[in-house]
Amino acid sequence: MWFQDNFELTEKHLHGFTEYLVSKTTDFQRIEILKSPFYGKMLIIDGDVQSSEKDEYIYHESLVHPSLIIHPNPEKVLIIGGGEGATLREVLKHKTVKEVFMVDIDEKMINFAKEYLSEWHKGSFFSDKVKLIIKDAREFIKDIQDETFDVIIEDVTEPFEGSSSCLLYTKEFLYDLYKKLKVDGVFSIQASMLRCVTYEMHRKIFWTLKEIFENVFSYYSYVPSFDTTWSYILSSNKFNPKEFSKEEIEKRINERVEGELKFYDGETHIKLFLLPKDIREILKIKVEPIEINKPFVLPKKDSL
Amino acid sequence: MWFQDNFELTEKHLHGFTEYLVSKTTDFQRIEILKSPFYGKMLIIDGDVQSSEKDEYIYHESLVHPSLIIHPNPEKVLIIGGGEGATLREVLKHKTVKEVFMVDIDEKMINFAKEYLSEWHKGSFFSDKVKLIIKDAREFIKDIQDETFDVIIEDVTEPFEGSSSCLLYTKEFLYDLYKKLKVDGVFSIQASMLRCVTYEMHRKIFWTLKEIFENVFSYYSYVPSFDTTWSYILSSNKFNPKEFSKEEIEKRINERVEGELKFYDGETHIKLFLLPKDIREILKIKVEPIEINKPFVLPKKDSL
Amino acid sequence: MWFQDNFELTEKHLHGFTEYLVSKTTDFQRIEILKSPFYGKMLIIDGDVQSSEKDEYIYHESLVHPSLIIHPNPEKVLIIGGGEGATLREVLKHKTVKEVFMVDIDEKMINFAKEYLSEWHKGSFFSDKVKLIIKDAREFIKDIQDETFDVIIEDVTEPFEGSSSCLLYTKEFLYDLYKKLKVDGVFSIQASMLRCVTYEMHRKIFWTLKEIFENVFSYYSYVPSFDTTWSYILSSNKFNPKEFSKEEIEKRINERVEGELKFYDGETHIKLFLLPKDIREILKIKVEPIEINKPFVLPKKDSL
Amino acid sequence: MWFQDNFELTEKHLHGFTEYLVSKTTDFQRIEILKSPFYGKMLIIDGDVQSSEKDEYIYHESLVHPSLIIHPNPEKVLIIGGGEGATLREVLKHKTVKEVFMVDIDEKMINFAKEYLSEWHKGSFFSDKVKLIIKDAREFIKDIQDETFDVIIEDVTEPFEGSSSCLLYTKEFLYDLYKKLKVDGVFSIQASMLRCVTYEMHRKIFWTLKEIFENVFSYYSYVPSFDTTWSYILSSNKFNPKEFSKEEIEKRINERVEGELKFYDGETHIKLFLLPKDIREILKIKVEPIEINKPFVLPKKDSL
Repeated sequence: MWFQDNFELTEKHLHGFTEYLVSKTTDFQRIEILKSPFYGKMLIIDGDVQSSEKDEYIYHESLVHPSLIIHPNPEKVLIIGGGEGATLREVLKHKTVKEVFMVDIDEKMINFAKEYLSEWHKGSFFSDKVKLIIKDAREFIKDIQDETFDVIIEDVTEPFEGSSSCLLYTKEFLYDLYKKLKVDGVFSIQASMLRCVTYEMHRKIFWTLKEIFENVFSYYSYVPSFDTTWSYILSSNKFNPKEFSKEEIEKRINERVEGELKFYDGETHIKLFLLPKDIREILKIKVEPIEINKPFVLPKKDSL
Repeated sequence: MWFQDNFELTEKHLHGFTEYLVSKTTDFQRIEILKSPFYGKMLIIDGDVQSSEKDEYIYHESLVHPSLIIHPNPEKVLIIGGGEGATLREVLKHKTVKEVFMVDIDEKMINFAKEYLSEWHKGSFFSDKVKLIIKDAREFIKDIQDETFDVIIEDVTEPFEGSSSCLLYTKEFLYDLYKKLKVDGVFSIQASMLRCVTYEMHRKIFWTLKEIFENVFSYYSYVPSFDTTWSYILSSNKFNPKEFSKEEIEKRINERVEGELKFYDGETHIKLFLLPKDIREILKIKVEPIEINKPFVLPKKDSL
Repeated sequence: MWFQDNFELTEKHLHGFTEYLVSKTTDFQRIEILKSPFYGKMLIIDGDVQSSEKDEYIYHESLVHPSLIIHPNPEKVLIIGGGEGATLREVLKHKTVKEVFMVDIDEKMINFAKEYLSEWHKGSFFSDKVKLIIKDAREFIKDIQDETFDVIIEDVTEPFEGSSSCLLYTKEFLYDLYKKLKVDGVFSIQASMLRCVTYEMHRKIFWTLKEIFENVFSYYSYVPSFDTTWSYILSSNKFNPKEFSKEEIEKRINERVEGELKFYDGETHIKLFLLPKDIREILKIKVEPIEINKPFVLPKKDSL
Repeated sequence: MWFQDNFELTEKHLHGFTEYLVSKTTDFQRIEILKSPFYGKMLIIDGDVQSSEKDEYIYHESLVHPSLIIHPNPEKVLIIGGGEGATLREVLKHKTVKEVFMVDIDEKMINFAKEYLSEWHKGSFFSDKVKLIIKDAREFIKDIQDETFDVIIEDVTEPFEGSSSCLLYTKEFLYDLYKKLKVDGVFSIQASMLRCVTYEMHRKIFWTLKEIFENVFSYYSYVPSFDTTWSYILSSNKFNPKEFSKEEIEKRINERVEGELKFYDGETHIKLFLLPKDIREILKIKVEPIEINKPFVLPKKDSL
């Protein structure tokens, strides 16, 4: 049996699987776990490959560590989304972190993850430092009065047409998040594909964040099970990840991080924040920000 | 119609095409050109995607420019393979270059390229600086007595079982090439995939070159039409690409390169020669070199 | 490489091919010939499998022989369409036939067939008995004044949206054909799929013909390269194919047919005109005829 | 998601599915139920489409009714295999039947069918007339002493390499079955594909049965979800299905059958036992019978 990922209209990727382990349809998404002979367990959400057992560390380390490491002392972290628990797992590796709020709209997804995705969360959901809130992130942000964070990480699904995540990529929501950051806070977000042939969504998010933050940095890493590089954006008013030396990054990792990192270290950090010429040219072209009234969504994927 | 690239046993990529432009079976390979709505013209050799009109610049700039730029004054260049003429095109952008020997075993392939691949070679075959030699590269190396080169670039197809390129990845041949480099010469070679799930061939080539050269550097770039990063190895006894600053690279490009580079520049150079932690760990593990009597080949691809 | 036949929205058939022999885009259609290791040469028109070298005899014998055999003395035959020449080939096997008019709108298709489809036409285009007319069949029918035929065979492509064949399945055109039949004439037409899960087009054609002819008979044969049974309709005011015994059919074949028949004989004839219960039930349900102002077309096939 | 049926080496059929309902691996086979938007529930055994909700009636009515109808008074029936219960369902429609022995080696399959395949068995497993025996059919045949049957139906999976059904197609086993038939008994068996491009297994079974029975009749029906016709063989020493008129079949159905038949009736019966010329020619060529020491199996299917 094959899971077909319709990458582009005329580009299709077939992932063979030998077992269909479990599926769950919640109010917000359809979640499936397949067993691939090549990638191990694969998590599929709404027909889109989310991550695989064998290489999810690349995505999650790329998304999480740059922002926490360039912050001098991240104690309080907010995760928007991140249902499978691996973003949480990486955050908890930082000894400075005292408290992590994780806000996800989909309780069934969280329960599903607790039960079936232990390779991803490694028990993180059960840490005393974690406050799990089942709520629409937009409401959560409005409800909390005085809470502010050192680092906020937005790890939600791609903004496909009709998906509940679309509103979480608008300038309005991102600005609300910005206000919940401390003055030296750092914000990271998964930011769709950034490659010379596919970049519209990333560029939209990039220029939306540019209207909010002083410093906005696109970066990407190659994730084999996605068959493409994947991108992220780090934003901050105070810190610039490109000003850190390899050695300073290594020093902070050694001081603060418990447990092994497989992908991220000083050399990786420097590499991540350098971009090739073609990609830099693409990002230079300014586009209109995503707003509630000027939405920008990806066409719904159909795996048939 | 679909061209199916059997990436791994259970990973298949389908490239839709709307026109099948031309095919040619030579004594050495089967060459086909398809027209993809997404990637433009695609060149297929022996059932394997070689390059596409839209993103071939990434592969060819990655392979060619680092070695020519770190050399102080590359005047005489040897290209092994490179049948489509795009490696030649990039070499000729360097004003220092006075003479390029290009050795390819397959005359029909070269004639095919001259006729059908003008988007690739851009007329380079017809430059006065070019000496085109139709010969087995192993024979060519034995025949030339006193010729030595500033830069040698090996750009041959993957060493699939039964392919004529297999012998061009052996220590014996690579050592023969080494002897044809001037004392400050630089050697670059395309080196298969290098990703955390697929790296055996690259690591074999890497450790084979480590037995010959002082300095051996793996690097890779992401090529969308390959659906993966692609890797190269730069070797030299004298120069180290990691010792160059972004500014020094930029300066040399400005002084020496005519015509536009779309991918390679100072920042790209620095990025290329940094590798993430997982990949560095993989390369650390020493393996036996490829030798004529200890061959290492990739299983033949079958596109059916 | 694979040719993908999108059978139904969620049913796709992949035909592997090892050679793409030739393609031609005419004003009316796109014609391609592939070489399949399993079916030999395959003819594709507008992304739809038309016939394969290995089993085209089933389609063409099924379409042609019943109508010619049940006619007592078919001398003058009209073929509408039939561009590849195999329908003509089968008609010419009947010694009684003195004159065949073949009307096809697409001169380039005919020239292409003459050159590349000799396995199909076997030289039939060059018979003295053949009058080849390049013209829209609707015009041809209006232009000829007094010509009438013993047998008319309509062998045109499926009425896909936008295809030039759509108008040839309307009641208006079929009635025009009817008027060109002699009083004891027989009419055969290829009539799309007729199977318990796909029958709408066939039933439409069936009931359109029922408004014109006294006797209308659906039949089908299984064609392996189509991965389905294929259907035809025989219509006549005078003759009933179900009233013929196996022996009578055999006798007529022996007397009249030169050259080998591989599929059709007495037993095959009887089998063809018997239908299983489920199919008979489907055909019983009367539907509106296809008319110029009440068109019925198949959704355009997209092979990507 | 797609289920890929590797029909031939270069012929692949993709069945899209929207739900993967359940899977079960027993000691003998792997059973999966998918939900197809086109065919409804599809039962897959060992990677091979067994039947679909929408058209399983064609296969099961074709396999069961001819043998029961041409028998004057079938009271005692033996079913070998038939795990999903639909063959049993059709047998029980015959009012003459007093006792049905159903022998299947795979208890887990039967329990699975009882629970998940009610659309197939319609409760038949729970009829008082049914004796369900979980045993290897070869042992069962040896254990029963004096039991003989009016009709025996063998409905086991294709004899793929390594499958437990291989031995059930040997002359030895079929002869053992023969001895358990009453003198006027009738035997039916599913007999793989019989089409002009794929017939080896069918012909082997046909000629194996010809060494045992006086009268052996191949027949087939087209099953849409198989994308091909499917074949069966009816054998008997006393009766000949081709000697029955449409009217006699209808009469017997009216007298003996309770519940609706959707595919089989008098006209269908006559059609089934007529074969086209090409198929008859194929069957004329005598081949060696399948014996334990001269096995003939189909290459294992791999759905990846």
